[in-house]
Amino acid sequence: MTRGRQAGAPLFRRVAVVGLGLIGGSLAAACRKQGLVGTLVGFDADPAALREALALGLVDEAGSDAAAVAAGADLTVLAVPVGALEEVATAIAPALGPAAVVTDVGSVKGALVSRLEARLPAGRYVPAHPIAGREFSGPAAAAASLFERARCVLTPTPRTDRQVLAQIRRLWEEVGAVVETMDPGEHDVIFAAVSHLPHAVAYALMNAMLDLKAEGRDVLPYSAGGLRDFTRVAASDPTMWRDIFLANRPALLDALRGFRAALARVETALTAGDGAALWAECDRARRVRRELL
Amino acid sequence: MTRGRQAGAPLFRRVAVVGLGLIGGSLAAACRKQGLVGTLVGFDADPAALREALALGLVDEAGSDAAAVAAGADLTVLAVPVGALEEVATAIAPALGPAAVVTDVGSVKGALVSRLEARLPAGRYVPAHPIAGREFSGPAAAAASLFERARCVLTPTPRTDRQVLAQIRRLWEEVGAVVETMDPGEHDVIFAAVSHLPHAVAYALMNAMLDLKAEGRDVLPYSAGGLRDFTRVAASDPTMWRDIFLANRPALLDALRGFRAALARVETALTAGDGAALWAECDRARRVRRELL
Repeated sequence: MTRGRQAGAPLFRRVAVVGLGLIGGSLAAACRKQGLVGTLVGFDADPAALREALALGLVDEAGSDAAAVAAGADLTVLAVPVGALEEVATAIAPALGPAAVVTDVGSVKGALVSRLEARLPAGRYVPAHPIAGREFSGPAAAAASLFERARCVLTPTPRTDRQVLAQIRRLWEEVGAVVETMDPGEHDVIFAAVSHLPHAVAYALMNAMLDLKAEGRDVLPYSAGGLRDFTRVAASDPTMWRDIFLANRPALLDALRGFRAALARVETALTAGDGAALWAECDRARRVRRELL
Repeated sequence: MTRGRQAGAPLFRRVAVVGLGLIGGSLAAACRKQGLVGTLVGFDADPAALREALALGLVDEAGSDAAAVAAGADLTVLAVPVGALEEVATAIAPALGPAAVVTDVGSVKGALVSRLEARLPAGRYVPAHPIAGREFSGPAAAAASLFERARCVLTPTPRTDRQVLAQIRRLWEEVGAVVETMDPGEHDVIFAAVSHLPHAVAYALMNAMLDLKAEGRDVLPYSAGGLRDFTRVAASDPTMWRDIFLANRPALLDALRGFRAALARVETALTAGDGAALWAECDRARRVRRELL
């Protein structure tokens, strides 16, 4: 993993991790493990998370002021939820030197990247989205191995400095990720479909069950595989997902339209009692699992 | 598990299992393990499944003619897919003696129960639906333990003989199931919601992804947890699910309407940029997992 990097020469002297949840904490742990950084300094809005990250040794120093933590860092990683990115970028910007590099780990890019870029030192912000997750969150869930063989999508803009982009690509490759670059808008269309839409659908499916319960018909005790597979997704943090949905509104609305069209085909075939059409819809859907496995 | 049953006195002398898939095969294995039957005889439309069931010892005898297999049995279990139940009931009916008992394991009841009842000896058919499954199917997937602590819903009608009902209840209790009785129509409303709807939604979600691919945008390589949780359900057998959907058409159409209403609330909040309403929808949905765990 360290081929090409000079022995004893970390990629960054001082890295500030702003947001010590699963992703921020894991990136800190992975950077440490791979010897990519000199000093790791961390911020989290939650004092308990900050103490925990220090106790776990994820960071060397911790501070409760994001700007103070980012001051003097040659790399700042914004690992707060999507809904907090703009506020945090605004807060740290005045503390950043002209050579400081900033990256993030947000799962929405598109217009959000333009807004962050406008707040951060020109050309020195590289938008990133590592596709990694687990059911648990917080510093205690952090793992240095989280990004091994995971995809990491970088969405540079025409303003992004190419050397800085190469540095951030290197960072993610060193922690084991498979890196690719993509247009920020294209990124949002893809993740609206494969991630944001399934979450919206799972939330709605659960709420349809609760609607029945509210009408006096509690169906939940009878749930088996079919419904249970979706409960994990539907139990995701509502604040985080509200913010993701809002940040990716146009692409998610498009994805919802596409889903409604596919659902309408099933419903139309069912209404008509058209077994051949219904079978074709069910059979076609199986291809996805075959392609993914 | 055998309390109350006289030692050495099986519940049934000769049991015919018509359909030796996961459920039929597992019920045969469980009956054998609990000593509930004298002789087990099996039918399957697939000669390979028949040979496999014999080789595995799930049944003592096997035949390729359903009526011949059911002739002389004091209990016949119809364990074929929902779409084949009527045909099989029609085929075996002439071979059944007046005291023969019939049950099934279908996941749709309602109008299907009336149609089966019309074909089978008066009062001696007890509709049953064990809520058990695994990802794999066929005789090789059969397990005597499949029904332990599983729910089994019986949906007797006013015509069902109460003594025969008690016998079938006993059968399921002896193999470890938690048995309850319910109106056939009520059963279908519940399972339309917790099982048939999630399958229809999963199929449509996969097809929405494939629609994007057909438009030249392959999003599947980027799928992570969100989508993957739906792929298992969407890979279910299309013939089986087409038949379940068609057999439970009115209740499933109602469930689809309820789901569309819940989805529309998410979409409306998103379109309006109404963060509070969106958060409320996401937060409410989490209650399902908490209730189920």
